[in-house]
Amino acid sequence: MPACIAAMDSDGMQQRVEEIAHRARSRLGTGRLADYIPALAEQDPNRFGIAVCTNDGRVYAAGDAQEAFSIQSISKVFLLTLALRAGGGDLWDRVGLNPSGMPFNSLSQLEAEQGKPRNPFINAGAIVVADHLVSAFATPAQHIQDVARRLSGNPSILIDRRVLESEWQHRSRNAAMAYLMKSFGNIANEVDDVLYAYFACCSLGMSCVDLAKALNFLASAGYARCADEAFVTPALARKINSILITCGMYDAAGDFAYRVGLPAKSGVGGGIVAVVPGRLSVCAWSPLLDASGNSVAAQYALELLSNELAGCAA
Amino acid sequence: MPACIAAMDSDGMQQRVEEIAHRARSRLGTGRLADYIPALAEQDPNRFGIAVCTNDGRVYAAGDAQEAFSIQSISKVFLLTLALRAGGGDLWDRVGLNPSGMPFNSLSQLEAEQGKPRNPFINAGAIVVADHLVSAFATPAQHIQDVARRLSGNPSILIDRRVLESEWQHRSRNAAMAYLMKSFGNIANEVDDVLYAYFACCSLGMSCVDLAKALNFLASAGYARCADEAFVTPALARKINSILITCGMYDAAGDFAYRVGLPAKSGVGGGIVAVVPGRLSVCAWSPLLDASGNSVAAQYALELLSNELAGCAA
Amino acid sequence: MPACIAAMDSDGMQQRVEEIAHRARSRLGTGRLADYIPALAEQDPNRFGIAVCTNDGRVYAAGDAQEAFSIQSISKVFLLTLALRAGGGDLWDRVGLNPSGMPFNSLSQLEAEQGKPRNPFINAGAIVVADHLVSAFATPAQHIQDVARRLSGNPSILIDRRVLESEWQHRSRNAAMAYLMKSFGNIANEVDDVLYAYFACCSLGMSCVDLAKALNFLASAGYARCADEAFVTPALARKINSILITCGMYDAAGDFAYRVGLPAKSGVGGGIVAVVPGRLSVCAWSPLLDASGNSVAAQYALELLSNELAGCAA
Amino acid sequence: MPACIAAMDSDGMQQRVEEIAHRARSRLGTGRLADYIPALAEQDPNRFGIAVCTNDGRVYAAGDAQEAFSIQSISKVFLLTLALRAGGGDLWDRVGLNPSGMPFNSLSQLEAEQGKPRNPFINAGAIVVADHLVSAFATPAQHIQDVARRLSGNPSILIDRRVLESEWQHRSRNAAMAYLMKSFGNIANEVDDVLYAYFACCSLGMSCVDLAKALNFLASAGYARCADEAFVTPALARKINSILITCGMYDAAGDFAYRVGLPAKSGVGGGIVAVVPGRLSVCAWSPLLDASGNSVAAQYALELLSNELAGCAA
Repeated sequence: MPACIAAMDSDGMQQRVEEIAHRARSRLGTGRLADYIPALAEQDPNRFGIAVCTNDGRVYAAGDAQEAFSIQSISKVFLLTLALRAGGGDLWDRVGLNPSGMPFNSLSQLEAEQGKPRNPFINAGAIVVADHLVSAFATPAQHIQDVARRLSGNPSILIDRRVLESEWQHRSRNAAMAYLMKSFGNIANEVDDVLYAYFACCSLGMSCVDLAKALNFLASAGYARCADEAFVTPALARKINSILITCGMYDAAGDFAYRVGLPAKSGVGGGIVAVVPGRLSVCAWSPLLDASGNSVAAQYALELLSNELAGCAA
Repeated sequence: MPACIAAMDSDGMQQRVEEIAHRARSRLGTGRLADYIPALAEQDPNRFGIAVCTNDGRVYAAGDAQEAFSIQSISKVFLLTLALRAGGGDLWDRVGLNPSGMPFNSLSQLEAEQGKPRNPFINAGAIVVADHLVSAFATPAQHIQDVARRLSGNPSILIDRRVLESEWQHRSRNAAMAYLMKSFGNIANEVDDVLYAYFACCSLGMSCVDLAKALNFLASAGYARCADEAFVTPALARKINSILITCGMYDAAGDFAYRVGLPAKSGVGGGIVAVVPGRLSVCAWSPLLDASGNSVAAQYALELLSNELAGCAA
Repeated sequence: MPACIAAMDSDGMQQRVEEIAHRARSRLGTGRLADYIPALAEQDPNRFGIAVCTNDGRVYAAGDAQEAFSIQSISKVFLLTLALRAGGGDLWDRVGLNPSGMPFNSLSQLEAEQGKPRNPFINAGAIVVADHLVSAFATPAQHIQDVARRLSGNPSILIDRRVLESEWQHRSRNAAMAYLMKSFGNIANEVDDVLYAYFACCSLGMSCVDLAKALNFLASAGYARCADEAFVTPALARKINSILITCGMYDAAGDFAYRVGLPAKSGVGGGIVAVVPGRLSVCAWSPLLDASGNSVAAQYALELLSNELAGCAA
Repeated sequence: MPACIAAMDSDGMQQRVEEIAHRARSRLGTGRLADYIPALAEQDPNRFGIAVCTNDGRVYAAGDAQEAFSIQSISKVFLLTLALRAGGGDLWDRVGLNPSGMPFNSLSQLEAEQGKPRNPFINAGAIVVADHLVSAFATPAQHIQDVARRLSGNPSILIDRRVLESEWQHRSRNAAMAYLMKSFGNIANEVDDVLYAYFACCSLGMSCVDLAKALNFLASAGYARCADEAFVTPALARKINSILITCGMYDAAGDFAYRVGLPAKSGVGGGIVAVVPGRLSVCAWSPLLDASGNSVAAQYALELLSNELAGCAA
């Protein structure tokens, strides 16, 4: 963290976060709710929350920062981290590391590239990672829920069964991807089992505070403070951050890098987690999305925070 | 039929068919067996059969013309005809009429065109037609088997259960297409039910003689002689022939039209049915395929027949 | 020609053509003018003409059948025929024979397939054919003008310099295709020279009567009556007709085959030439186009003619 | 710069750079020379150079760091910076900011997206930027040469006329892109003029030392030390670095981010420039390229440097 913020007392930091929340709320009303599944379409469009977890373990929050929402694609960070922690095996032979340049649920590139997804943060890539976890763990969804609880220090985190059911009923697009990859030999388990594990992780309900704490290990060179463990190596934390920069924001990674410049992962539930390596992790949430599927108000909050950090660094 | 052949006595016609079979056998050994499913990969590559059914109801056959083989994509002609006979409903809103310019199992075009297949003779299109039949008939596979028996006058025609099982086990690619179309709202029934009906039709075992007789209605302005019924209207027979010309030979429709110039439908079991409107129907069969999935020797036999017909017409 | 029409006296045939023209005029007002180049956008949208040239050499015409219009893509039939007459050389190594399944000026397929166009009736394919003619003839545009005059017996046919100039000024899209093919080694001459020859042919001004007469050789097994010469072999005429069926109507070849069922070539000037092998050639013209670039009223006129021919054949 | 290096005396830093050069030389012999134009295919594959320019203005160099090579795509950084300095105008309406996910010279995406390139660091994007400069400056190539001289303090930098001539003769692919964009109205000037300016910049001959000095402004919040001027604003320097991270390394941006994690731009001449914001700029060069068009040995040198910086930061 830059000196001016590092030196800031807790009250000062809390005040900044509240100012950002106040300004970001001005963007409420712009965008549209995810219509991917009915359960998401029922969210209250006026919710906004933000939580910052600094590397010393303090949390600064504002707005609806304690309210659980559907983490959706943010789960892809958990999936990938657990797969790499479990050794990874041949994972990087089965999924690439580069931006796709395509919408997150595109099939044509997957077909042209013989069922190997471009990166682990598009749907097809995360489904391959889920397949890896289905092979590695007896109850992968349970395992991820346990890890989310441990990393955030919140034992009440749950898979939202109603969201999970809705995902399952509207699985056609993801099923198409999974079967296409299976036709190329890139899915080892039964498609239904893999999709179930994948959807279960997407359906985790977590708050901004939960997520800022749970993913702080990416800002802390792999050290998870709540769990008090070296969760991943410093090298691995650095590499995951790199994938987040190039592939974390759907097909708007470049726009986001240009405006915000931080490793981040977005979900269609309206949450975005971002990382300032060596300093802090942050999660902002608001349900209305732009055309790329990223929360309008949450992006703006992160842009404000990033500019503030850069400004006091200059 | 041109005068010179129309005037030919039965012995003369039989002799021509045997000469064509003799010459086409010289092409045996070229090409590869379908590896789409294991059951097809076990066919004897040296089989060759041909059967001509003239519009007066006579059949001229040579080689292995009485041996049943897996009709595979030739079933798409039955599927489409039955759907159009059953009224068709909104079928032409759900599937197009133009060549795809792509391999028969491509997904990228299907994705770009919102789940509407280009024509009913690529896999995706035939799956939509199968979905239509699943809605229209309680037991669509049984219904198609009954029709095939009636049109060919052969009550022993059967769905090959071993092929059907193999299709089901290797359904991933077709399942990917079906789920993709379902994600766009273009499949009304459960994907598993639609695929089962589709595979059952593909798995019909019929001989060259069966197929030449069963599809003679396309050469006879819609009249099915074996069943002695006006099976489709003359206008509908003409229209189905037009789709066969532009879309019947996978992505080699143009090559085939250039060399043979007849409405035809091919299957990866090695069979090809062709139609000379007003004259005759013909089916040739040999298991080894070219790169487009069309039988090498069967195509050559049809080219010889077409040249002969054109020659005596000149 | 079917007996009922073959037996028809000249007055009867003339009456049919006039009835078709009358009915087709009801479609005027539907569609849009080509905006490809300004010169085409200035056409009178109410023009309609039709001319039938029977294989005995008689011509039956109605409407604006004597008015010259820009033949545009119909020139691709002349280009291909001249290239094949000149031997063809390696032409079929440089251009394919199958439907493209794409708009006529698409680049993505051309890129994916290493600069080899799908068929000679999309722009890229015709540009390769033009390159072939630039290599073969000192003044290819002059040569094609001469051939058009000879085949139609009309020595006043001209390249419209105003259209040619407009084509040249708006050449960007075609230049992109030509340079892309040159980058793959599939254009031998300078791009500017090839485009000039290509545009010159597109800019020929011919009437319905001119075109029906000039392309009657495709209906007459290669014999050109006005020039009194065997212009191409019967086999070549048959093959060109086959390419016309599968590739002649832009990306609507299947729709047109389904409705009309004749080998045909369309141009964005509003003309369509069709062939009834062994019987007659026909050209209909009206400037307003549908979304595929084919004249609305001219298509309808050909559909009426085709139905009439089929009806009296039944 | 991390404390351990910031504190390092000049001798220490020089020693590190020489060690990196020594280790990177072990990768010589792997990869292939660019065959894009003959002039590049004649480079000596055993060349390797590296130069570091710290933000205090000192330069540490090893190997062939003073030898001029063809900067090729590194020129895209100059082109973009000059366009943005000149106001930018509607530049971001004409070119995007996101990774393309495609090879650098792909046309299909450009066609699908109506002639708007994904970002300014693929060829099509840089050609749009060059068009912008052709509109803004009377002699754009001269202007860029002047800027390169001023930023690096080396008045002998030249456009290599032999490379420029070779680029021009092999311009077909880039000409195809430029004409395609012009067909969509996204090129304002004559294609030949735009390509000439674009190729002239690509043909600049500069050494590792020249480039490390010239692009140090990206590490120094926009301040160009050699020229002693605020070349761009701190905000603009930060934004250019963001585009470099997501789009600077052809279609291997993600791989490079994963391994190296620095904003960087590569050229098929074998040079790569990278930036450690707030610390230093670096240029490594060696002609043999990997499949993505990035120098094998130069990438490895940057990976070693990045690991060293991260290591002493830990």
